[in-house]
Amino acid sequence: MELYFSPLACSAASRITLYEAGQSATFIEVDAKTKRTHTGQDFRAVHPLGLVPTLRLAEGDILTENAAILQYLAERFPEAGLVPAPGLERARLQQWLCFIGTELHKGVFTPLFDREAPEAVQQYALKGAQARLELLERHLRGREFLLECFSVADAYLVVVLNWAVATPIKLEGFPSVSAYLARLRKRPSVARALHEELALYRRELAAAAQTSSAP
Amino acid sequence: MELYFSPLACSAASRITLYEAGQSATFIEVDAKTKRTHTGQDFRAVHPLGLVPTLRLAEGDILTENAAILQYLAERFPEAGLVPAPGLERARLQQWLCFIGTELHKGVFTPLFDREAPEAVQQYALKGAQARLELLERHLRGREFLLECFSVADAYLVVVLNWAVATPIKLEGFPSVSAYLARLRKRPSVARALHEELALYRRELAAAAQTSSAP
Repeated sequence: MELYFSPLACSAASRITLYEAGQSATFIEVDAKTKRTHTGQDFRAVHPLGLVPTLRLAEGDILTENAAILQYLAERFPEAGLVPAPGLERARLQQWLCFIGTELHKGVFTPLFDREAPEAVQQYALKGAQARLELLERHLRGREFLLECFSVADAYLVVVLNWAVATPIKLEGFPSVSAYLARLRKRPSVARALHEELALYRRELAAAAQTSSAP
Repeated sequence: MELYFSPLACSAASRITLYEAGQSATFIEVDAKTKRTHTGQDFRAVHPLGLVPTLRLAEGDILTENAAILQYLAERFPEAGLVPAPGLERARLQQWLCFIGTELHKGVFTPLFDREAPEAVQQYALKGAQARLELLERHLRGREFLLECFSVADAYLVVVLNWAVATPIKLEGFPSVSAYLARLRKRPSVARALHEELALYRRELAAAAQTSSAP
């Protein structure tokens, strides 16, 4: 199983999921800007939109889209208990995966991270953040996880909330969200994944700085 | 079961799903602008973000987010065969639901439909449409549906593609996508749902015009 990822991108949720399950994969790093893999291959030949995570299964099948990959991994390693049983609780998991993916990730953070996005686009995204974080704040009050126990939705949410420090979004105004993030960051699978990817992220930044300062 | 919907919004996919399954629900219309239900109730008391579809189950539980509701309905009426069996095909269904939700719906159409979105936001969304529709075009070439047979992902996609006429997006440049949309629109469940919701949409427009022209 090969997992195409970019350091600290939403693909980190798949890494957390694998570590939770005591599993691994061949991790193939994709430069988020050039869309080339670490070995110089054109990642767009694998996924035309150049989006991570992308999973290549042992049989060669390509699976894309975060919510799909997270649920696939969770079902592949059921002993880790990362998805609830089918029924209403499973629907709730899908509700949170969908909310994080559409409302937070694509609606708020994607435009904030796009350096080509005009200022108006960024302001528009920021404006939408408040109500979405309030909803999350109300839900997380008095709760340890999004559902009854840790699930792939938490793996996704911690990665997305972790991005806030690199944006004008201030989580301090949302105490339950802040506490959740601080708590989850200490969870071994999360701590390990974020620590490893932060190192790779810094290496990528350093390499980009070197390239741009070359004569 | 109560389904909160706005005419021709993505909640129409849930109506199509119910019709496919030969089922119904109590449909509660929500004015997309005022966020009030047909009977004058504040829909934000049900869903703070005011987003449809929102499903209230017989037991009173509230379920939100399109991908979650579509899968919940499909699993509730398994004889309709609207989701593949668990495994890789189920993951593919989730991949398409996620792609339609994040890349097409939220990434392209939501900003195009938001009248408060600045021009730059709309241009940014339009720019992203091309590569996403090209990906869809390649996938639909020679295929009748997104998966092997009609699924809730098709119910969602037909509703989203149906929006293009109200935007500057031209589907004519994507022949397989255009043919798919024309074909799916004729499917009885889709034809019935879109016909009914178009009538409600026109009534909503007429009511809004009357309100704004009132002295």
